[in-house]
Amino acid sequence: MTSLDRRTRERLLIQEKILDAAREQFLAGGYEAVSLRKIAEAIEYTAPAIYTHFKDKTDLLRALCRKDFASLEEVFLKMAKVADPLERIYRIGMAYIKFAHEHPKHYRYMFMTPGLAEIVPPTEEDLADMNNPDKDAYAFFNLTVRQAVEAGRFRDEFTDAELATQTLWAGVHGVASLEVTHADCPWVKLRPLNKRSKSLCAAVLRGMLKNPEEMEAFL
Amino acid sequence: MTSLDRRTRERLLIQEKILDAAREQFLAGGYEAVSLRKIAEAIEYTAPAIYTHFKDKTDLLRALCRKDFASLEEVFLKMAKVADPLERIYRIGMAYIKFAHEHPKHYRYMFMTPGLAEIVPPTEEDLADMNNPDKDAYAFFNLTVRQAVEAGRFRDEFTDAELATQTLWAGVHGVASLEVTHADCPWVKLRPLNKRSKSLCAAVLRGMLKNPEEMEAFL
Repeated sequence: MTSLDRRTRERLLIQEKILDAAREQFLAGGYEAVSLRKIAEAIEYTAPAIYTHFKDKTDLLRALCRKDFASLEEVFLKMAKVADPLERIYRIGMAYIKFAHEHPKHYRYMFMTPGLAEIVPPTEEDLADMNNPDKDAYAFFNLTVRQAVEAGRFRDEFTDAELATQTLWAGVHGVASLEVTHADCPWVKLRPLNKRSKSLCAAVLRGMLKNPEEMEAFL
Repeated sequence: MTSLDRRTRERLLIQEKILDAAREQFLAGGYEAVSLRKIAEAIEYTAPAIYTHFKDKTDLLRALCRKDFASLEEVFLKMAKVADPLERIYRIGMAYIKFAHEHPKHYRYMFMTPGLAEIVPPTEEDLADMNNPDKDAYAFFNLTVRQAVEAGRFRDEFTDAELATQTLWAGVHGVASLEVTHADCPWVKLRPLNKRSKSLCAAVLRGMLKNPEEMEAFL
């Protein structure tokens, strides 16, 4: 291993620390709460040194956005090997909820922040990746739903693949985000997450199918 | 109208102003961001005067919680007249999403705040109301689902009424909360809310039914 490798690894490691601290601060108090000076304090680094990694707060929050969405895309890409699009939809849904449960802070930043896209507007580069299933998690999920629609597996009222994707997404987002906010809620004692995940994924997908019996093959 | 009436009305009006200001501050920066002094400034009132309405910040945030949940319960109670429990589930789901859309700040406070119940732990009085469908929105929805289960309308795997309630809730919460966070998202162009609401409510409920054809009666 050359010394350049070591330097690159160190650079990535410090960037990860900076991003983790930024996420913490963002979740604690929104955009205003993020400060390069406070991040420097939190990770025992100097503010000017942080500027060698990120040119400003927006640049930093955009990098965080890209990094967190890349983690989700990585999870989704593992599902590419599932041949049947219906089964793939189900597995993606379950994996999505698992991701939120394992990375609640990532999930809050990515999907539970009002106006995140105004804080970090997509760049040309981001927009170019948007419809690419190999790079964008929504595009990947949408492609799978489109394959199911095109194979005639969905009922007539669910053949708008975009609407069908957003319906399935809403369902799993509901389970995921309630877990983040209400896991230990004294008001509503939630059933175990695994049961709620399976129940939602099975119900919403079954409700869209022309032939609901097809679910039995993978449930 | 007596002068006491007028005084009571004025008192309620000022309490509403205080609560609205508290909600704004809470959403902007969490618990820490709420301050009686800042609320007083925002509504051009004096801090000591606020203490004649609420004894401290927790008392204020609990009152806000009760008020916002009471607004939702009011919406739900209107559905009591829908005779068929399946149709009632569907209508409650649609009404829930509409509530979130019309009161996004109420909704964020009530359902999108991690650890709200730790900030305002339920009192004895709150706990006593918890299973009362006439006072608690979750209990009202849960009762409707239980009626559908007990009438044998749900498939065997959805006969745990608690799990079924939480599955339906997760679905509508997903639509509602994505609308709050992603309505104008440049990444994912959402289909119109009305279409997403109907699509989710129809899919998740249909997927739970023994006889999905029953949906046709009210869709």
